[in-house]
Amino acid sequence: MGYLLRNCDFVITWINNELRILRNVDIAIDNGLIVNVGNIARGTYEEIDCSGHAVIPGLVNAHTHTPMSLLRGFYDDAELITWLNKMWSVERELTRDVISLGSELSIIEMVMSGTTAFIDMYHYPDVTASVALRYGLRAALGPTFIDTLRSPALVENELRNFLSMYGDSSLIRPIINVHSIYAVSRDTLLRIKDLSNELNLPIQIHASETRDEVYESKRRFGMFPVEYLNSLGLILSKTQLVHLGWVTNWELSIIAKANARVTHAPTSNMKLATAGHFPMRELIDMGVTVTLGTDGPASNNSLDMFREMKMAVLLQRHSYWDVGIKAIHAFKAATINGYKLLGLNGGCINNGCVADLVLLDLSSPRLQPARDDNILSNIVYSADGSDVDMVIVDGKVIYDRSRDYPVLRERARNIGERLNDFIRKFL
Amino acid sequence: MGYLLRNCDFVITWINNELRILRNVDIAIDNGLIVNVGNIARGTYEEIDCSGHAVIPGLVNAHTHTPMSLLRGFYDDAELITWLNKMWSVERELTRDVISLGSELSIIEMVMSGTTAFIDMYHYPDVTASVALRYGLRAALGPTFIDTLRSPALVENELRNFLSMYGDSSLIRPIINVHSIYAVSRDTLLRIKDLSNELNLPIQIHASETRDEVYESKRRFGMFPVEYLNSLGLILSKTQLVHLGWVTNWELSIIAKANARVTHAPTSNMKLATAGHFPMRELIDMGVTVTLGTDGPASNNSLDMFREMKMAVLLQRHSYWDVGIKAIHAFKAATINGYKLLGLNGGCINNGCVADLVLLDLSSPRLQPARDDNILSNIVYSADGSDVDMVIVDGKVIYDRSRDYPVLRERARNIGERLNDFIRKFL
Repeated sequence: MGYLLRNCDFVITWINNELRILRNVDIAIDNGLIVNVGNIARGTYEEIDCSGHAVIPGLVNAHTHTPMSLLRGFYDDAELITWLNKMWSVERELTRDVISLGSELSIIEMVMSGTTAFIDMYHYPDVTASVALRYGLRAALGPTFIDTLRSPALVENELRNFLSMYGDSSLIRPIINVHSIYAVSRDTLLRIKDLSNELNLPIQIHASETRDEVYESKRRFGMFPVEYLNSLGLILSKTQLVHLGWVTNWELSIIAKANARVTHAPTSNMKLATAGHFPMRELIDMGVTVTLGTDGPASNNSLDMFREMKMAVLLQRHSYWDVGIKAIHAFKAATINGYKLLGLNGGCINNGCVADLVLLDLSSPRLQPARDDNILSNIVYSADGSDVDMVIVDGKVIYDRSRDYPVLRERARNIGERLNDFIRKFL
Repeated sequence: MGYLLRNCDFVITWINNELRILRNVDIAIDNGLIVNVGNIARGTYEEIDCSGHAVIPGLVNAHTHTPMSLLRGFYDDAELITWLNKMWSVERELTRDVISLGSELSIIEMVMSGTTAFIDMYHYPDVTASVALRYGLRAALGPTFIDTLRSPALVENELRNFLSMYGDSSLIRPIINVHSIYAVSRDTLLRIKDLSNELNLPIQIHASETRDEVYESKRRFGMFPVEYLNSLGLILSKTQLVHLGWVTNWELSIIAKANARVTHAPTSNMKLATAGHFPMRELIDMGVTVTLGTDGPASNNSLDMFREMKMAVLLQRHSYWDVGIKAIHAFKAATINGYKLLGLNGGCINNGCVADLVLLDLSSPRLQPARDDNILSNIVYSADGSDVDMVIVDGKVIYDRSRDYPVLRERARNIGERLNDFIRKFL
């Protein structure tokens, strides 16, 4: 049993890497896939009236630390290293229950704001995965190597357990998380390379986020961070490099040559004052797959991918002193590129794409006036997550505002109170 | 007849220039003013249940071009001067009807997102003023001197008419708008100075927005823009300088000495790639009243002041490479400083402050968890306008989500369609 999305005012999709805007079409979904787009005769599918709506591919939050809504607003006004040490002081005390609550609060926020998949890095990923499955969201995640907090043998053991639990899940994709070159030793990095090969898993790592990281890398290893990772054989097509605010231009060709993937998290970089510049235009020109992430809700402090798309364009324009980066680049990063990173044919609304869709209510004042020529602009520069009316993942309606809004908000408030009971110990 | 706001979970206010967070208090409003804050016995006032809500002062959008939602998304991908010429090509054809529709669409968006007052610069301000009054919003506005489009004599005449229409209004505050030193001649600027003295009106002007403006000012006048305006006697305590992205450090002391007011519009500057740096910390340290504006909805493209507060902090952190600018600075700029610019005792929730208030619904997932120590952070870094449940201006409820939400959205959609009929001529 599938769905027929009838009379969509606008459908925004990618066909052969080109953005296409369709008007007044229907979308048929069956068995988790889009099976028809056009003017479709009524059949046995359950119908969803999409008049007054723009239908877009689901948004992929390519880098976050989902449970960290538990630390939202806990410690905002510090630069990265100071901030990180403060986070770690609480994170040593985290329980599975607290992780579950933080994950659920963030997942509610993501679902309500049109995120259909997220790539996560945190402790107890099995807890976060189980909450994601409960809400029907896609997630790529796994235990995090971080020698400063946990022994690598322990993390490796967790990774194997995680794989046995979620290796066959259609919504959960196991990955190897590596905190950074400053929190993980050279020996551990070499072990991670072997594990990645043995288990055939992607690797996600923070890289070249701060001036300090780059300076210390050069001092200790005689190489910049991406050069160092490359010297260990860790810059691969399955490697996802996050941040790259202080990457050198000669490291870009290492990334491009390996076909590694990169993720930009502009809001978090700005909030933590890491400064630097993510070379988005150069990376795009070299054919690198650029994606976007909010980073964790303790360093953003929002999980709204609409806001992140806008921020990405704006920060690039500010840095380059020109308008070379446009709405289309951010939309591509958040949709089709995000799905590419997940290894799925998604981020598109064509036959055969996974049925991960978001319905935006065009009666939101900030989305008016709406026409073919400005709908993309309205989505990237004006919309926010609150304009989302419905979210479909894997062909299932995981959020229907008219049905779920009051329940989810009541739940969010309840979780907030329970998180406060935990956090108050640290104040 | 007034209101009693009962059981407010959080009340955020300013007392003697210090931020204060009150818990579980009531607020009494009478005759447009706040008359009591604390635990108040029930009386004859109509009660509003504020449990589950944070009550904050209304937000002042200190610089916008309200009717320009009619041009939202019309032409996004250009730098300022190219963009401006494109805007002017349409603006020559504007009618009062179109201005009214654009103003109404923007005012709906502002009201729904917690803006209680705005400072505007555009053509036909009497039309915008009448819409603002209809919706109960405060506005400071007036005809705009822009020699490139209209003769100064014509604008002066409009100004006198505007003053006779709105000089006595409690919600509308007439001002003299001046586009810029590059769109207004020296003779006109001198005439404006006389007019400002004769009519006792504040002046709003774009200044030092682009590198080009600064370069041309130095070339033509031998002075930088603020120096030039100062040489004409136009840097005064009633002068509002907008943008200042390329102001020199020696011009800051001219501004501070005159006690002129300044407005930062970070999103618009970034979107138009004007680059530069608004020296927020230096201006604050010098005691200058810093305020925030979204700029027009054709260059932002949102009117959400919550998003603008966050953007201000983030851009400053990115530029200074440190976290010196914090949530409190943006909140101050958007609340109490905005009201100072309007010449009102507002932006605060104490006895005698004007009763301009916004109720935020704490069951929004992005506002959880909420405590005394993080509520301000949640408001600045996580909230957006969609978290607004009620807006009170001048002691009157001008927006009640439970009552007005569907009606306003239907109206927004209808306006959007009518604006499209106009815009299509230019596509």
